[in-house]
Amino acid sequence: MAHAAQVQRMSRLMFKTLRDDPADAEVLSHKLLVRAGFVRRTAAGVWSWLPLGKKVLANIERIVREEMDAIGGQEVLLPALLPKEPYEATGRWEEYGAELFRLKDRRGGDYLLGPTHEEIFTQLVKDQCTSYKDLPVILYQIQTKYRDEARPRAGILRGREFQMKDSYSFDTADEGLAESYALHRAAYQRIFERLGLDYRICAAIAGAMGGSKSEEFLAPAAAGEDVFADCPSCDFAANTEAITYELKPVDAAGVPALEEIPTPDTPTIETLAAHLDVPASATLKNLLVKVNGEIVAVGVPGDREVDMGKVEAHFAPAVVELVTAEDFVGRDDLVRGYVGPQGLEKVTYLADPRVAPGTAWITGANEEGLHAKNVVAGRDFEVDAYVDVVVVQEGDPCPNCGTGLKLDRAIEIGHIFQLGRKYADAFQLDVLGQNGKPVRVTMGSYGIGVSRAVAALAEQHADDKGLCWPREVAPADVHVVAAGKAKQTELALDVADQLGAAGLRVLVDDRPGVSPGVKFTDAELIGVPTIVVAGRRAGEGVVEVKDRRTGEREELTVAEAVARLSA
Amino acid sequence: MAHAAQVQRMSRLMFKTLRDDPADAEVLSHKLLVRAGFVRRTAAGVWSWLPLGKKVLANIERIVREEMDAIGGQEVLLPALLPKEPYEATGRWEEYGAELFRLKDRRGGDYLLGPTHEEIFTQLVKDQCTSYKDLPVILYQIQTKYRDEARPRAGILRGREFQMKDSYSFDTADEGLAESYALHRAAYQRIFERLGLDYRICAAIAGAMGGSKSEEFLAPAAAGEDVFADCPSCDFAANTEAITYELKPVDAAGVPALEEIPTPDTPTIETLAAHLDVPASATLKNLLVKVNGEIVAVGVPGDREVDMGKVEAHFAPAVVELVTAEDFVGRDDLVRGYVGPQGLEKVTYLADPRVAPGTAWITGANEEGLHAKNVVAGRDFEVDAYVDVVVVQEGDPCPNCGTGLKLDRAIEIGHIFQLGRKYADAFQLDVLGQNGKPVRVTMGSYGIGVSRAVAALAEQHADDKGLCWPREVAPADVHVVAAGKAKQTELALDVADQLGAAGLRVLVDDRPGVSPGVKFTDAELIGVPTIVVAGRRAGEGVVEVKDRRTGEREELTVAEAVARLSA
Repeated sequence: MAHAAQVQRMSRLMFKTLRDDPADAEVLSHKLLVRAGFVRRTAAGVWSWLPLGKKVLANIERIVREEMDAIGGQEVLLPALLPKEPYEATGRWEEYGAELFRLKDRRGGDYLLGPTHEEIFTQLVKDQCTSYKDLPVILYQIQTKYRDEARPRAGILRGREFQMKDSYSFDTADEGLAESYALHRAAYQRIFERLGLDYRICAAIAGAMGGSKSEEFLAPAAAGEDVFADCPSCDFAANTEAITYELKPVDAAGVPALEEIPTPDTPTIETLAAHLDVPASATLKNLLVKVNGEIVAVGVPGDREVDMGKVEAHFAPAVVELVTAEDFVGRDDLVRGYVGPQGLEKVTYLADPRVAPGTAWITGANEEGLHAKNVVAGRDFEVDAYVDVVVVQEGDPCPNCGTGLKLDRAIEIGHIFQLGRKYADAFQLDVLGQNGKPVRVTMGSYGIGVSRAVAALAEQHADDKGLCWPREVAPADVHVVAAGKAKQTELALDVADQLGAAGLRVLVDDRPGVSPGVKFTDAELIGVPTIVVAGRRAGEGVVEVKDRRTGEREELTVAEAVARLSA
Repeated sequence: MAHAAQVQRMSRLMFKTLRDDPADAEVLSHKLLVRAGFVRRTAAGVWSWLPLGKKVLANIERIVREEMDAIGGQEVLLPALLPKEPYEATGRWEEYGAELFRLKDRRGGDYLLGPTHEEIFTQLVKDQCTSYKDLPVILYQIQTKYRDEARPRAGILRGREFQMKDSYSFDTADEGLAESYALHRAAYQRIFERLGLDYRICAAIAGAMGGSKSEEFLAPAAAGEDVFADCPSCDFAANTEAITYELKPVDAAGVPALEEIPTPDTPTIETLAAHLDVPASATLKNLLVKVNGEIVAVGVPGDREVDMGKVEAHFAPAVVELVTAEDFVGRDDLVRGYVGPQGLEKVTYLADPRVAPGTAWITGANEEGLHAKNVVAGRDFEVDAYVDVVVVQEGDPCPNCGTGLKLDRAIEIGHIFQLGRKYADAFQLDVLGQNGKPVRVTMGSYGIGVSRAVAALAEQHADDKGLCWPREVAPADVHVVAAGKAKQTELALDVADQLGAAGLRVLVDDRPGVSPGVKFTDAELIGVPTIVVAGRRAGEGVVEVKDRRTGEREELTVAEAVARLSA
C-alpha cells in the first residue's frame, strides 16, 4: 500500500497546468502555484489545495510537527469556531475590528473564527494545570485560521483562511519563558533550514499581541509585504517597523523667537519649501489622524514619510484612520495645510524623535496662507509623546553601529513573542507555587505560517521555467517523463516502480497523447528536484537524469539511475 | 527525534483525569473521553482535542488516508469558509435552514461554513477536467466541517464543528459510478475493520443529499441516534428510516357506507378507542404538520407512531414543523382532535401504505365530538401520496422475508451515496466524451465521521474501569507505570526507553508524588492496550505485563517483556 502511494501516475492525477499567468496574479508565487496546478482560488483570499499543493503542505506540516515534538511540544487541536466571551475578556473581540470574522449561531449566540488562540489556550491551561509541577508546558496545533484581510492579495501569501502552526508556552518564571522562547527560536531555525528557506531573524514590534520581546523570521522575497533593514557592517537586522531613532535633545538657546511669515498658496511641504527656498527637511510636517475617532497630530521632518504601520502599532489595538475633509468641519483650530503644533491645545501631539526638544522648524501658523519659522520643540510647543513613526529609508543610520542600512522586502514566515502575563492576568491564570502560594503564569506565543511557507518557498525557489522545490518539501523526489510512445512509457513506468520500491516518492508522466515537449514544460513548471526522461535511448534501457535546478543532465542506464537516485 | 516522540513522559504531559462524570454528560463516550482527558468542551458542540485525544484522532486520520490512497483517492484540501453562490445554485443555501452557519465578510459578502462540499468539488472538477480521459477521479479531504445542530449533545458524537473525511467520485458512466461506489464500500470496510469498530452496512435514505443509492455504516451503540433493524433470519439490515411497507390495496366492496357517530370528549386516539371499545389499530390518526409553512395532513393507523425523520426526509429539504394551536385559528376545516381526511379538500393528504386503498377506518368527522366509521381510503377520501412514515417497531415484518425484525441503536460512522447527476446538472459539469460529444458527469459522495469515530470507539471499547482502545488507534501501544519510588521510576523509564527504541509508542507514568493506586486507576481509564507495571519486584528487574481488556497479567523480566511486546 505504501508503495502504491509512492508512485503517482500523472495520467490519473487531477491536475491542469496553465501556460499563461492568471489575470489577477501580481506576484511570482501566485502565478506559478496556480499555473502549476498546486492551488485554485475559491473566493477572495480563500484557496483550495489541489493534489500537488496538498503534498507540499503535508511535507511542511510533517517537518513542523517533528521539530515541535523535538522541543517537547504537545500537539492539540482547538476549535476554529470560538465563543465570544474569552475574546471579550481580553478586549480582542472589539480590538480586532473588521479583521475578525464574526457570526451568530441559530440561538443568536456570538461566535468568531479564530485568528489566533491565546485566550482559548490560557483557559485550557487554567483548567488542566494547577501546580508549578504541571509546568512548563508547550502546546501546539496545526490548524486553519481566519482573518478578514482588507485586501486579500498575492495568492496564498495573504489569505483570509490559512494554515498556521501556533504554539503557546506556559511558565511560572521569566527565566522559564526565556527558555521556552529560546527552544522555539532554535526549533524555528531548524524548521526553516529543513524547509530550504532563506530567512533572517529580525527584531519586531509586537503589534496587537501585546508583550515585550518579539522576533520575526523573515524570508527575503520581492513579493514580501514587510520591509526589513540589514546592516552591512554589524549583525543588526530588524523589521523597519521596529527601528526607532534615538531622542537627542539639542540646545535651542541661540534660536530667535518664533516669527510668522506670509506664505500664500503653500498648503503642501513641496510648495512651502519651494516658496521659501529651503530644504523640506527644515520644515515640520503635521499629519492628522483619527484614533478611535479622535483627532491626533503627528509631527515629522518635512522630508520624511510617516509609516502608518508604526502609527497603528503605537495605538494598537485602537483603529487609526486618516482624516478627511469632513473632519475639519467646525474645527477652527485645524487649518488644513497650515497646521502647526504651537496652536493645537485641543489635540494630542505626537512627534518623531527627530523633532527632539530644542530643534527649530518652519511649520504652519494655523491660519490660511501663514507659516511660522523658528518654532522650537519644547519652547514654542509641547510634545505629548515621542514615537518613531517615520518610514525607514535606505541609508538611514544603523541604530547599532551607525552604518547606512540596506533595505529589503520579505515575507514574515514565523513570529515568536514573549507575551508575559497579559493573558494570564485576563483569566487569572495562577498555579500553586513551590512555596504554596499562587504564582501568575507567564506565556509565550509562537506562529509559523504553514500555507504561507508554501508561497515563500515558491518565491525563493523558482526560475523562468517554473518552480524548483527543495527536496524535503517537494511534491515528489523524482519526476519521470515518458517522452515517446509505448516503449518509452513502459520504461518510464518501470523506472518509476523501481524508484518507488526504493522508497522514493515518484511522479510519472505517462499521459497518453501528450507530446514530450508539453511534458518537459510541465515537469519544469511543477519543479520536482530530479527529472528522469525515458526518451530516445529507451530501447537501450538508457534514461536521462536531469537536475531541475542546475539543469545538469546525464545519460545513465536504468540500474545506474535507480542506484544514484536512491543513494 | 522519532525516538523522542515515541516515549511520552506523563510527568510532562498536559492531562488531568477526573474521577466524576461531567455534569452535562449523558452518554458513555462523552463521560469517558472527558474524564480520561482526551477532549474538553470549548462551547456547545465545539470541542478541543487534548494531547491524548489528538493522538487517537491522528491515528484514525492515518488509517483513513492510507485506505483512501489505496483506492486511488487523491488528497486535496478545500476551504471551510465558502462563498454563498455555489450553494445558491443548488438551492442548499436555503434548504439547509438553521443548520448552516452563515456569515458576512467585511464587505458584506455572504459566506457559509461548509457542512459538506459537493458544490465546490463539482466546480473544481469542472475547472480541472475537460475530457473523458481525465476521469474517473476520486478526490478526498480530511477537514473540519460545520453544522449548527439544534441540540448539540453527546459530546463529540454530534458536534457543531467536527472532523470529516469526505470524498467525491466523478465518472462519465453509471457503471463507473457503481465501481467508484464499490471501491469506497470496500475501503470503508477495511477502514472500520482496522479501526476495530463493530459495524453493519445498512440501506439508508439519502436525505438532503439527493441521489439514488445510499448505504450507511452503523456502529451499534446505546448512545447512537440512529435505529437500525436487523433481520434474525435473512441478511437484511437497514436504518429504520429506510424501511418502507409495501402498499397492498384491499377490496372494500363489503364495507357499509360511512356513518357519523357521536363521540363526546374523544380528542385523542386513546380516549376514542376506549369510548368505542375498539383497538387503536382500527382508528386512523391524522397528524398535521407544516411544510414550509403550509399545513399537510399525514394519516397512519392509530396504533402507530409517526417517524418525523421519515416525514422530514420525504419533504427534504423543506422545513417540517408540528402545528401549534395558532395554526388552527381561522381554519374552520381543521377541528382539533376530530380531523378526518374525508373533509380536508384544502389540505394535502399523505398516508402510510398501511392506509391502503380499500381499508376502512374510524376517524374524525371534522366536527367537535363527532367521529365517522367505515371511512374507506379511495372511496370516502383521496390520498394524495403514499409515504411510509411510521416508526418501525421491534417485530415488524422484515421487508425481505417477513420475519419479525430486531431493532438496535447505532452511530452513523460512514455514509456512501450514489449522487448521480444532481450536482453535475446544477453546474453543467460535462466532459468531452469518446465520441467527441459532451457527456454529463455522474458523481458519488462518501463520508466518514473522523472525530465521531473516536466517540464510536469509546462507546464500543470500554468497561466499568474506563476506555480500552484497539491497538491501531490507541494513544500509545504500552502504558508503563512506575509504581513506587526512585527504583521503580528508574526501571519504568528504562523499560519505556527500550520499548520506544523497539518502535513502540509508549506512555510512561513517571509522575512524582502520585500514588500507585492513582496511577493504576488512570491507566485503566486512559485505556492503552498493554500496561506494564514496575512495582514490587523492580529490584529484581521484574515487571508485570497486563492486558487492559482481559485483565490477564504476567510477571516477566524486562528483557522478556520487551521481547514479547515488540514481537
